Amino acid sequence: MSKLIHVNGFEMATPGHINHGLWRVPGNRRTDYTKLSYWTDLARTLERGLFDAVFLADVVGTYTTYQGSRRAALRAGMQVPNIDPMFVVPAMAAVTEHLGFAVTGTTTYEPPFGFARRLGTLDHLTGGRLAWNIVTGYLPDAARNYGLSEQLKHDDRYAVADEYLEVIYRLLQESWDDDAVVRDAERQVYTDPDRVHEIGFEGNHFTVAGPHLSEPSPQRTPVLYQAGTSSRGKAFAARHAEGVFLLPRDDAQAAEEIADLRRLAIEAGREPDHVKAFIGVEIVTAATREEVAAKVALLQQHRDVEGHLVLFSGWSGIDLSGDDTDRYLEYRGGDAMQTFERMWSEGEDRKNIGELVEHLSRPENNKLFIAGTPDVVADRLEQLIDGTDADGINLVQHLSPGTFTDFVDHIVPELQRRGRYRTAYTPGETLRERFFGPGHARPLGDHPAARHSRVPAGA
Amino acid sequence: MSKLIHVNGFEMATPGHINHGLWRVPGNRRTDYTKLSYWTDLARTLERGLFDAVFLADVVGTYTTYQGSRRAALRAGMQVPNIDPMFVVPAMAAVTEHLGFAVTGTTTYEPPFGFARRLGTLDHLTGGRLAWNIVTGYLPDAARNYGLSEQLKHDDRYAVADEYLEVIYRLLQESWDDDAVVRDAERQVYTDPDRVHEIGFEGNHFTVAGPHLSEPSPQRTPVLYQAGTSSRGKAFAARHAEGVFLLPRDDAQAAEEIADLRRLAIEAGREPDHVKAFIGVEIVTAATREEVAAKVALLQQHRDVEGHLVLFSGWSGIDLSGDDTDRYLEYRGGDAMQTFERMWSEGEDRKNIGELVEHLSRPENNKLFIAGTPDVVADRLEQLIDGTDADGINLVQHLSPGTFTDFVDHIVPELQRRGRYRTAYTPGETLRERFFGPGHARPLGDHPAARHSRVPAGA
Repeated sequence: MSKLIHVNGFEMATPGHINHGLWRVPGNRRTDYTKLSYWTDLARTLERGLFDAVFLADVVGTYTTYQGSRRAALRAGMQVPNIDPMFVVPAMAAVTEHLGFAVTGTTTYEPPFGFARRLGTLDHLTGGRLAWNIVTGYLPDAARNYGLSEQLKHDDRYAVADEYLEVIYRLLQESWDDDAVVRDAERQVYTDPDRVHEIGFEGNHFTVAGPHLSEPSPQRTPVLYQAGTSSRGKAFAARHAEGVFLLPRDDAQAAEEIADLRRLAIEAGREPDHVKAFIGVEIVTAATREEVAAKVALLQQHRDVEGHLVLFSGWSGIDLSGDDTDRYLEYRGGDAMQTFERMWSEGEDRKNIGELVEHLSRPENNKLFIAGTPDVVADRLEQLIDGTDADGINLVQHLSPGTFTDFVDHIVPELQRRGRYRTAYTPGETLRERFFGPGHARPLGDHPAARHSRVPAGA
Repeated sequence: MSKLIHVNGFEMATPGHINHGLWRVPGNRRTDYTKLSYWTDLARTLERGLFDAVFLADVVGTYTTYQGSRRAALRAGMQVPNIDPMFVVPAMAAVTEHLGFAVTGTTTYEPPFGFARRLGTLDHLTGGRLAWNIVTGYLPDAARNYGLSEQLKHDDRYAVADEYLEVIYRLLQESWDDDAVVRDAERQVYTDPDRVHEIGFEGNHFTVAGPHLSEPSPQRTPVLYQAGTSSRGKAFAARHAEGVFLLPRDDAQAAEEIADLRRLAIEAGREPDHVKAFIGVEIVTAATREEVAAKVALLQQHRDVEGHLVLFSGWSGIDLSGDDTDRYLEYRGGDAMQTFERMWSEGEDRKNIGELVEHLSRPENNKLFIAGTPDVVADRLEQLIDGTDADGINLVQHLSPGTFTDFVDHIVPELQRRGRYRTAYTPGETLRERFFGPGHARPLGDHPAARHSRVPAGA
């Protein structure tokens, strides 16, 4: 039987996330990102479309590689200005019952104790619908905002991240027993103090006494997302991630990366399907081919190529500005994304800048840009998912609300007809249960977080 | 003409905030504090009652002075467990238009850059309805959660706080010019890079490059609340606070402290009425004296005296446990609250523990506990406000929603009849404008934050 396709709506609280220049399209609500109604409307749309979750990207600095400054990023509205995405979650949760919320948070800059409380708080307030997209940060500019004279080296960041996760697990999983809160009115006991434990963590980077301040939330640890694709990042994901976000250049690379991920998960002692793989795709759809063509033309017309160059410069660490269009790119080891490995097939890695600009100038050059009527898009999605062993997609946004309403109105019914999309949410399920089945609100037994689950008192 | 009385609803996302044992009262929704509906219902009630704001207290550790452990705090549900109050704000903002939100945040534990973004984000999402209650933290237990081997000394905490505020002001006030975001579709410019500035802050405690990541929010810097009552705390409040929360023992002490505050504000170069003073009061009311008496009896019946001892032990730093009821209390310099100075008139400071327990055992022993029919309560409130030069009250909660619905249904109409309470909100006003008048969305000219406001480009 073919798998249901999971869908996250990919968003960021900023004028331009991955597609640039489109804030200028008439009717795009993108620039309303500071208003609560933008987010509550979005949440209602995604819940109407039975999405798994909204995936909220984030950065805590600006992109400064292109031309050696943040000026171009500011001009393009390229992930700056932005607001803290964790705060749009409670408002979206208040107007929905089922939609999940994946919030991006870095392990490099914020103390783990306070961050654990933010996670616990959001898992409570959403009733167990929270995911955390773990990032280690890849912008040198961010480090300067947190008093670090330079960005930690890539592998050091992962060493810090491993320890950060250990602190988070211990706070969320083992600090409060499930039966700690007794609310015994007669004995005048809210919490049994014997069932709340300090963690006494003393590591290389963090010292945290505990206990965690919040009582256990429905999922305790939120569902863990990750997007690392370096070898160190993949090992981290194989160990910790329950959902991995990939931005591959094509189906073949996606298949290879997913096979890699499942193999590494097995090596880490986990079931291979305990890591869900989501592929980033762009979709433009409408009832007729003519309408689809018109929509693609509109995106083309407003595309801000410089914004894309700023983004790729930041991801790759290579300044793509300048007139020297014959200059060949040398891949120097990517940060969050191994951008250049991913964008072309092998052998093409040494494209020069002129060719890159040409490539970025047209959205259709992305092999995971899918434009077509609903049957065409559904065919392509089935091919992509089944050919790569993926579990679903991260749907990249062009227009708000257009991208998501088009998917909900055109693609969801088509996928439902094909038996590839849920037809209703399961009442009361947590986000983790949506991915791993009923009874699995808490981390699965083969996940490192589960090591920190105390046996209930008396057992 | 008599002043309108400002009212904040005093809350905390925990089973027991200031009054303990009351989670056991049948029908009290207190234990629903982890549910969004608790907070959205609360917000609707306060907005129906035309409150200025909900004031959300917070701690990031547990109370461990009493019996040298956190066990009694856990048993009583005394400010633990809790959740991060900043996250209930967006949901409350989504169901209201006017209510303000004062969130407590410490200057001791979280990096200022990320905290500034949280403030900017909430000021955006609430449309300029945010206040920040600045605390320096007084629980030794909290320090251990943030890798500090011991709590900073009281005066050191204020030195750190001064620098923290400086960073926050520079990020929120001067990093983005008012006209930085141009959204010029034709020129393809979202933000004019010449109008966004690094702050390049290098102090004794923090190094922060900037710029702030969010575009200017309606108030830029949220309205600043503070509750410090030590001499160092008062100087800090006189310099930075726009609203000060007092918990005095009686009217005379309130009058003295408020006079002190206004004098210190003048010394700090500010207008004395640019600091609003809110007195913490408890109110029990109903249509008849018999109902009032029954409500007071209910509170008495469920009062958890040990919870109060835990709280006072934490505030004072003196362990009030033990059988030695003849032991006299020695005042050792309080932390957040000069508890013992405040609870009794002078000369009574050397009460022994037995007398203290006796005092805490009855809610009516608090001289700012007001029980009566609406006319009686309104008389007492007018007397308190006018006799002390206060600007309003922080209404301390006993029962949720009872305390606030009673105030809204009984006291608000009575105060309105007397011309002492607003009869409508002013559409579109920010929280700061509610306190300081139209056109004053941003910090007033005599506030230290205003020093960091850049002159608009070209002026």
